[in-house]
Amino acid sequence: MNKPIKDLKPITVEASPIPGSRKVYEPGVRFPDIRVPFREVALHESANEPPVTIYDSSGPYTDAGFTPDIAKGLPRLREQWIVDRGDVEYIEAREVKPEDNGILLRGGNVSEGALAPQFPNLPKVLRAKDGKSVTQYEYARQGIITPEMEYIAIRENLRRKEQAETVRDGEDFGASIPDYVTPEFVRDEVARGRAIIPANINHPEVEPMIIGRNFLVKINANIGNSAVTSSMEEEVEKMVWAIRWGADNVMDLSTGRNIHNIREWIIRNSPAPIGTVPIYQALEKVNGVAEDLTWEVYRDTLIEQAQQGVDYFTIHAGVRLAYVHLTAKRVTGIVSRGGSIMAKWCLAHHKENFLYTHFEEICDIMRAYDVSFSLGDGLRPGSIADANDAAQFAELDTLGELTKIAWAKGVQVMIEGPGHVPMHKIKANMDKQLKVCGEAPFYTLGPLTTDIAPGYDHITSGIGAAMIGWFGTSMLCYVTPKEHLGLPNRDDVKTGVITYKISAHAADLAKGHPGAQAWDDAMSRARFEFRWQDQFNLALDPETARAFHDETLPKEAHKTAHFCSMCGPKFCSMKISQEVRDYSAAMTDNERADIENGMADMSQKFRALGSEIDVPAE
Amino acid sequence: MNKPIKDLKPITVEASPIPGSRKVYEPGVRFPDIRVPFREVALHESANEPPVTIYDSSGPYTDAGFTPDIAKGLPRLREQWIVDRGDVEYIEAREVKPEDNGILLRGGNVSEGALAPQFPNLPKVLRAKDGKSVTQYEYARQGIITPEMEYIAIRENLRRKEQAETVRDGEDFGASIPDYVTPEFVRDEVARGRAIIPANINHPEVEPMIIGRNFLVKINANIGNSAVTSSMEEEVEKMVWAIRWGADNVMDLSTGRNIHNIREWIIRNSPAPIGTVPIYQALEKVNGVAEDLTWEVYRDTLIEQAQQGVDYFTIHAGVRLAYVHLTAKRVTGIVSRGGSIMAKWCLAHHKENFLYTHFEEICDIMRAYDVSFSLGDGLRPGSIADANDAAQFAELDTLGELTKIAWAKGVQVMIEGPGHVPMHKIKANMDKQLKVCGEAPFYTLGPLTTDIAPGYDHITSGIGAAMIGWFGTSMLCYVTPKEHLGLPNRDDVKTGVITYKISAHAADLAKGHPGAQAWDDAMSRARFEFRWQDQFNLALDPETARAFHDETLPKEAHKTAHFCSMCGPKFCSMKISQEVRDYSAAMTDNERADIENGMADMSQKFRALGSEIDVPAE
Repeated sequence: MNKPIKDLKPITVEASPIPGSRKVYEPGVRFPDIRVPFREVALHESANEPPVTIYDSSGPYTDAGFTPDIAKGLPRLREQWIVDRGDVEYIEAREVKPEDNGILLRGGNVSEGALAPQFPNLPKVLRAKDGKSVTQYEYARQGIITPEMEYIAIRENLRRKEQAETVRDGEDFGASIPDYVTPEFVRDEVARGRAIIPANINHPEVEPMIIGRNFLVKINANIGNSAVTSSMEEEVEKMVWAIRWGADNVMDLSTGRNIHNIREWIIRNSPAPIGTVPIYQALEKVNGVAEDLTWEVYRDTLIEQAQQGVDYFTIHAGVRLAYVHLTAKRVTGIVSRGGSIMAKWCLAHHKENFLYTHFEEICDIMRAYDVSFSLGDGLRPGSIADANDAAQFAELDTLGELTKIAWAKGVQVMIEGPGHVPMHKIKANMDKQLKVCGEAPFYTLGPLTTDIAPGYDHITSGIGAAMIGWFGTSMLCYVTPKEHLGLPNRDDVKTGVITYKISAHAADLAKGHPGAQAWDDAMSRARFEFRWQDQFNLALDPETARAFHDETLPKEAHKTAHFCSMCGPKFCSMKISQEVRDYSAAMTDNERADIENGMADMSQKFRALGSEIDVPAE
Repeated sequence: MNKPIKDLKPITVEASPIPGSRKVYEPGVRFPDIRVPFREVALHESANEPPVTIYDSSGPYTDAGFTPDIAKGLPRLREQWIVDRGDVEYIEAREVKPEDNGILLRGGNVSEGALAPQFPNLPKVLRAKDGKSVTQYEYARQGIITPEMEYIAIRENLRRKEQAETVRDGEDFGASIPDYVTPEFVRDEVARGRAIIPANINHPEVEPMIIGRNFLVKINANIGNSAVTSSMEEEVEKMVWAIRWGADNVMDLSTGRNIHNIREWIIRNSPAPIGTVPIYQALEKVNGVAEDLTWEVYRDTLIEQAQQGVDYFTIHAGVRLAYVHLTAKRVTGIVSRGGSIMAKWCLAHHKENFLYTHFEEICDIMRAYDVSFSLGDGLRPGSIADANDAAQFAELDTLGELTKIAWAKGVQVMIEGPGHVPMHKIKANMDKQLKVCGEAPFYTLGPLTTDIAPGYDHITSGIGAAMIGWFGTSMLCYVTPKEHLGLPNRDDVKTGVITYKISAHAADLAKGHPGAQAWDDAMSRARFEFRWQDQFNLALDPETARAFHDETLPKEAHKTAHFCSMCGPKFCSMKISQEVRDYSAAMTDNERADIENGMADMSQKFRALGSEIDVPAE
């Protein structure tokens, strides 16, 4: 039933270093075997500066000389750590059923050519022993520092040296960002529920990362096919492409055929945590008829996906029956796929949302694999008109209730957020979420700050994302130029990722996150000193920066030119600025004093003039 | 010496309606001859909604059936109003000299082929009689409502009806935005100096517009050649292209050859106000040697440009000798072209900036033509590291002094602003400028909220621009993807303009500007009802919106499809949402009451559970 590997379209994942960057790895101290990845940009020797260290999410694909073998998957770097904890056991995996790949039980067409092949090197499946909770939250609350936690502490410090004093320049609205991240700090944040480490025990390929207000702001990219377009090969390529440019997490939002098989290929080859929305696959299993969804089908889907290694589930347990009518007068109703599906189910059955009523059972499944909740914002506003309305905040209140229940079960939680929100309403979202959800991490989709620009919604939302990241949001879910218009392609994925890296970094800067500004400063020094190649290499997108420069000045000689085509050699302010600096440095103290005195005289005159509006012309 | 017209490359300015929009004109009441432009998007009849009125800056080029005659120029629509005021006279224009076009006095190569032709239908030049001030500010202070002021009032209302009560939903930080704009309100704002109407008496082709905090946020696009690239034909095309997509004003920042001739073609064909930085041309006249600049050369350049019809001059009179050393330790020194030129001059001569010492004489020239000041921020920060430093704010203090002097002379003033500013420092810029500059309009360049993304600086700055527009900035100067890398081409100009239209409109929304949200609401209703063509037509960029949709769903049938390729027919939340709304509406009161009661029971149970963190698993 599965497509033979030989018929597989050639997968051409981008496996090469980012231009100008070199992958480097730092070892652990408590856990000497861990190797934490970064990329390093070495500068021109005239800079007389050390290389710049940049956080890297691209995985082994950007290691020098790495040859991907997609059919084998990535190294299972966490496997031993997980097994060594002694609280998990190998189990008989749930059998994969035809309907997991969208092949219907009762007839229906099965086209051999459309099937994605099964991943050929399926690993054995782990699960917690004896109903234990094997989540990072559970370990943290027991005072245990896991290898994942040390890995993360090293990763977040960006190889900075711990200093006696770090000068802060930012506004963090009461966050608790440390000068220097220790493994103990990581443990404490996770124990408080203020941060999560999405890392399913069946996804040992993950390079551990953390989502929390007191850490670097993270971003998520969405991939996944739909009934209308895209294939497995394309989805794996998109995942590698998205993390290359900076996606910290990736969600597989597939809604078409072959969901199970596609997901396995993605997880086995992803160094980034993978999220899903299980209701999509559940809906496929009931042939797209929302009313036919049942708790049993959904439960089975949770287990299926948890055993594959999905790291977080978006679950719309806050779309309660009584809230649905609150959307009746909205301009854009319910824009969340999962939210609209559950709303339909509730009304059709005149019953409470089964995700809500079975919430504790969901927790029991997730705690056995360490799958984190991403409590879905099914009632988020999909237009400026609907922002901050009763439906949205009623759901948020419920998500707050559910957070406590999940924590009681030892399950990690983050909270999803809007949506479409005009700038003046953004802070209220953050304040309310902090208050209602016990400081669980916030994970927003934008928000879009206006509805008028389809084709440019990466920008309308990049504005809102930067702001809400500044206010305390921990992860920003990207939006591509294709939002509202169709499924994004590779270029769209890259544009969305770069835009959201901008938003996340602008937020880190505004929060005064220690060390964040080092990157901007290195770029600006390179710019001032006309180290063009360094400028390109330090850019979020070195290829585009260089290509844009070369459009008008392509020759190698231009790379040391003290101008570009914006102003040309006579008018380059950077060039003149350097001359000014030399002049200024060469002035004598007397010359400086003269200037000061002269200034005093002239200032007095103008102040006398200036204090009255109506001054006769001289 | 001038290139014959027959050798002119064919100019292909884009002269066609925006897809889906129709140009319409509203007449005046006080001045019945005025015709105020808008574009109107008619919706599908199933919408049962009136057409949406959108502010339009594209000029006659988008009128149905308009055939541009670039050698003739646009209709001189203000000419009679200006002459009728009786305070101007035709004068012998200053003679155009070879050095005005970069042809050196002492030898140097003159290449016939490189000269831009002279505009063939030069108009007669006007100037104020008897040293009068003929500025809109002067008229406003005398209590006069000019035709320009009524035109603007009509333009700003977007054909809204005046209502008894307008519900505000925004945060405007103490602005004074009226529910409905009257000509008297316009006059009052201009009289206070809180708004300016850039409209040189020698630029009668201008469709009057206003720049002020209590009006719609405006945007500026930059065009202009450099020594390295671009020609006159390209610059005229860029101007028409920029205003087509929404630029309210255009600055010609040319620094290459043929500055005078190029500018004449631009002004004669521009319905938008045109700004310049006169020091650029002055520098060309002294062969690029900043030290050779003199007040006399500069003064002559001001007169030359004022007589052509330039509407506002960027003048770096705040770059004072004593401030220059404050930039010595900056990371990126002085990034303003004009600022760096004046700084160099000051240090080379050990003298105060002649723009500062001759400021009143500059006012005397400008008042005679109604050229507005754009007081330059020569010491703006060009990197995150330099934001809000002593140099920047010292200059701002001086701009505040100079504002008073200009007003005393009856000259309109706006104040230029940064630059590169991390989000947490943006509001301080606005607050300080309001305080120091007597509420003169603020006109910022972005600001960029991080330095790390050359190639994407339209986005890094679009974030800062949206925020500072919200806080009270009146005009946002665009940044294109080519910033820091080279001169922008046509595509870059469009991308920059669309990005800044987004920022400006997001700011209007957040300020609660009356009527602003009507556009977003119309778009969102179209989206919810799957009126695809309406979505495209309402978009800031209809062509791109449609092209992106059609990449995956190109057929005409798809334009009424109740899904797109993002989710496909089964998963489209909009589609399901419509079903939910129908269900909900069909519920009986009893069914609703049952839901409410059921909710109450379940909520109590979960509240009891939720109030304690450690709850035993059931």
